[in-house]
Amino acid sequence: MRQSLHCQGTFPRSKGVPMASRATPHQPTQRDLDRHLHRYARRTAGMTASEIRALFAVASRPEVVSLAGGMPYLSALPLDSLADGLAQMVMTDGMTALQYGSAQGTPELRERICEVMALEGIRAHPDDVTVTVGSQMALDMVTRIFCDPGDVVLAEAPSYVGALSTFASYQAQVVQVPMDDEGVIPAELDTTLRSLRAQGRTPKFFYTIPNFHNPAGVTLAVTRRAQLLQVCAEHRVLIVEDNPYGLLGFDGQIYPTMRSSDPDNVVYLGSFSKTFAPGLRTGWALAPHAVREKLVLAAESATLCPPTFTQFVVSRYLAQQDWKGQIKSYREAYRERRDAMLAALAQHLPPGCRWTHPAGGFYVWLTVPEGLDTKAMLPRAITHRVAYIPGTAFYAESGGGAGDRLMRLSFCYPTPERITEGVRRLAAVLERELELRRTFGNVHPRPVSGPQSPAPDTA
Amino acid sequence: MRQSLHCQGTFPRSKGVPMASRATPHQPTQRDLDRHLHRYARRTAGMTASEIRALFAVASRPEVVSLAGGMPYLSALPLDSLADGLAQMVMTDGMTALQYGSAQGTPELRERICEVMALEGIRAHPDDVTVTVGSQMALDMVTRIFCDPGDVVLAEAPSYVGALSTFASYQAQVVQVPMDDEGVIPAELDTTLRSLRAQGRTPKFFYTIPNFHNPAGVTLAVTRRAQLLQVCAEHRVLIVEDNPYGLLGFDGQIYPTMRSSDPDNVVYLGSFSKTFAPGLRTGWALAPHAVREKLVLAAESATLCPPTFTQFVVSRYLAQQDWKGQIKSYREAYRERRDAMLAALAQHLPPGCRWTHPAGGFYVWLTVPEGLDTKAMLPRAITHRVAYIPGTAFYAESGGGAGDRLMRLSFCYPTPERITEGVRRLAAVLERELELRRTFGNVHPRPVSGPQSPAPDTA
Repeated sequence: MRQSLHCQGTFPRSKGVPMASRATPHQPTQRDLDRHLHRYARRTAGMTASEIRALFAVASRPEVVSLAGGMPYLSALPLDSLADGLAQMVMTDGMTALQYGSAQGTPELRERICEVMALEGIRAHPDDVTVTVGSQMALDMVTRIFCDPGDVVLAEAPSYVGALSTFASYQAQVVQVPMDDEGVIPAELDTTLRSLRAQGRTPKFFYTIPNFHNPAGVTLAVTRRAQLLQVCAEHRVLIVEDNPYGLLGFDGQIYPTMRSSDPDNVVYLGSFSKTFAPGLRTGWALAPHAVREKLVLAAESATLCPPTFTQFVVSRYLAQQDWKGQIKSYREAYRERRDAMLAALAQHLPPGCRWTHPAGGFYVWLTVPEGLDTKAMLPRAITHRVAYIPGTAFYAESGGGAGDRLMRLSFCYPTPERITEGVRRLAAVLERELELRRTFGNVHPRPVSGPQSPAPDTA
Repeated sequence: MRQSLHCQGTFPRSKGVPMASRATPHQPTQRDLDRHLHRYARRTAGMTASEIRALFAVASRPEVVSLAGGMPYLSALPLDSLADGLAQMVMTDGMTALQYGSAQGTPELRERICEVMALEGIRAHPDDVTVTVGSQMALDMVTRIFCDPGDVVLAEAPSYVGALSTFASYQAQVVQVPMDDEGVIPAELDTTLRSLRAQGRTPKFFYTIPNFHNPAGVTLAVTRRAQLLQVCAEHRVLIVEDNPYGLLGFDGQIYPTMRSSDPDNVVYLGSFSKTFAPGLRTGWALAPHAVREKLVLAAESATLCPPTFTQFVVSRYLAQQDWKGQIKSYREAYRERRDAMLAALAQHLPPGCRWTHPAGGFYVWLTVPEGLDTKAMLPRAITHRVAYIPGTAFYAESGGGAGDRLMRLSFCYPTPERITEGVRRLAAVLERELELRRTFGNVHPRPVSGPQSPAPDTA
């Protein structure tokens, strides 16, 4: 796992970086580290690698227990039969699988995707599916077709860091809506929309992860789904429903998708990264027909077409392997890890901490006692051989304290034993911070500006 | 080859579509075909599928000889050993190949890419390489980091349709520079740059395909390369050197890359789509270090990472198969096809036609006699069971006559016999058009507006 942490996901660009470098055209001098600085687009000005990437390079050492990354646990995959199937696929379909394909994705895979979505009650036609390079690309394409610079996008608070990064790259303004243990709060969404309307602003869409939320680890209550649909319909706001973990409910529970209830006002995003394998980068968007047409045109200019080869790999896997059994294996593996994490948190964490109890997915969202700052604490945690993602990474606006007392803990990848050990180390770090605080008061004054946390997160 | 033509590449959005649909906010009614129309970004307004897509659906019938598409001829690939190697790769490296990877691409592949580029005299460090989902994505990322709406990008006249489509999706203004049989004309580039400077405009970059140009089929003279580098350095304009065909010179000739001469002012784009297989969608950008950092950040928000799996496939192929021998096989196959096309053109075409004589690559650029219009003629050509891409597709500005008398003929995919037959049919169509014109005068008044030609082109 040489590539484990320093390179496994999205580090959002730093926030709060002034755009003066472009607003005031800059004549390069020999002293400039980047002689192309004056050439970048406005959207690029804020794209800087966070200093904390360096920390995560350290965190990828084997002695560090990483509760940071979102890498799926793949050891359950049947490599023998995958290898056999793949060799056969190349022999029988190689000439097509190695050739250019449709920008929309192969017809075979789009049909299979409809079968997968049917498990969650979605009735869809393959014509309305667009295959993408992971659902990250679907997010990128949705944002590309809808968002001009300055447009408002609504998201949950907190939200998936890769989505925030995409919205930022299109210079959208992200407005986040509060959540509780039952997911995003419909009344808060309504209030936010009214307030925006009063300012003359209409958001382009509301981005939501209803099931086993990343990073919050909560699931949107079923009654709230209908309420959200109603609020969005009333305000004429499109919903982007991102559902990579929907089939990973630990008790096999399936929640009704919003797409099923309102096909014309929901763009649904799916992925094989969690139910099969992320290295194939195969995701999709299911969209109302006219939107799908725009998505395909946008995708064509972005990559010509998604890799035909990996689409054939996924199609064959779905056709010939026990993929439902594999999802069951994943669920069991993740449930065992979730249980290990919750047990360790209950046993080791100091008083004043609280955390979510995910019924599926990959993540626990942890609140630490008042006065602690998870971002400031991270270097010390890594020194004590445990890593996590500070909560600030999941908020579009830096400063104001959003996320300061929060962190995301992943239980998807390490073994249960490593998870237990990681939480034990984290608890020790927290105890030490609290002790320092009791002795010296607040030792971590919040910086008023500067680069924002990264998040080596993956989908 | 079920997917052959209607789905094999880039159809640029229609040009000249008014943007009023967004400038005047639109309240959806039940009559709207697209109730999301009022939501799209400005860049999306002009994205419409051309009516000629329907024509190409017809053109994909087996009885039509397609000289339109850019699909490589893959039959020379050794499927047996590819299948074996792939199965072994899954058994030994499956857990890594199926997992998330670095946004920059795997270190192994980036090292191999440096070995490939060394064949063209490029000395590069793997740190400066970014692997992308085909070089189309590299183009997309380069445009993303450099171009704000309204920024000027320079390109050759004509230029690769997929590049024009990407530039349009970032709302860049494309200014095209004339070419002749020795490629783009440095003095014309200088004149264009002076004229832009007089208007207070600095182009973000100059996009060029020096070798075996798509669609023009010409190669930039070696002396001109130094001149172009000098003109660009003088005007402080970055060069984007797109070189997918560089190793496909029919006599094994290798031209010096511009990147070799000026590493700090050239972003070089490469691809395995023509030298191995396009269905793997593996391309790359080699960029000055600071630019590479921005490219990786942009790519991360676009797809998280390129498919690890296909990167392992390509790495293994380069490590264990006779890839140089394979490139030689491709060269021979394409030379045979080029020869068939040039012979057929000389034998069958009516007087008044002229065409380029490519020394490598996939394309011949054909000028038809005055008074004919290749776009207007296309439906009749398809009726006569031959297809091509009208020249207008390769110009950013519609109207003004650019490309009207031009067409791109591909010799990459059909057999030599089919190529000969296709050219014979094309000649008959041209004869008939000329006959009509002699009898009735100009029968194809040029439309003053309306959707622009598509181009089912691939890289």
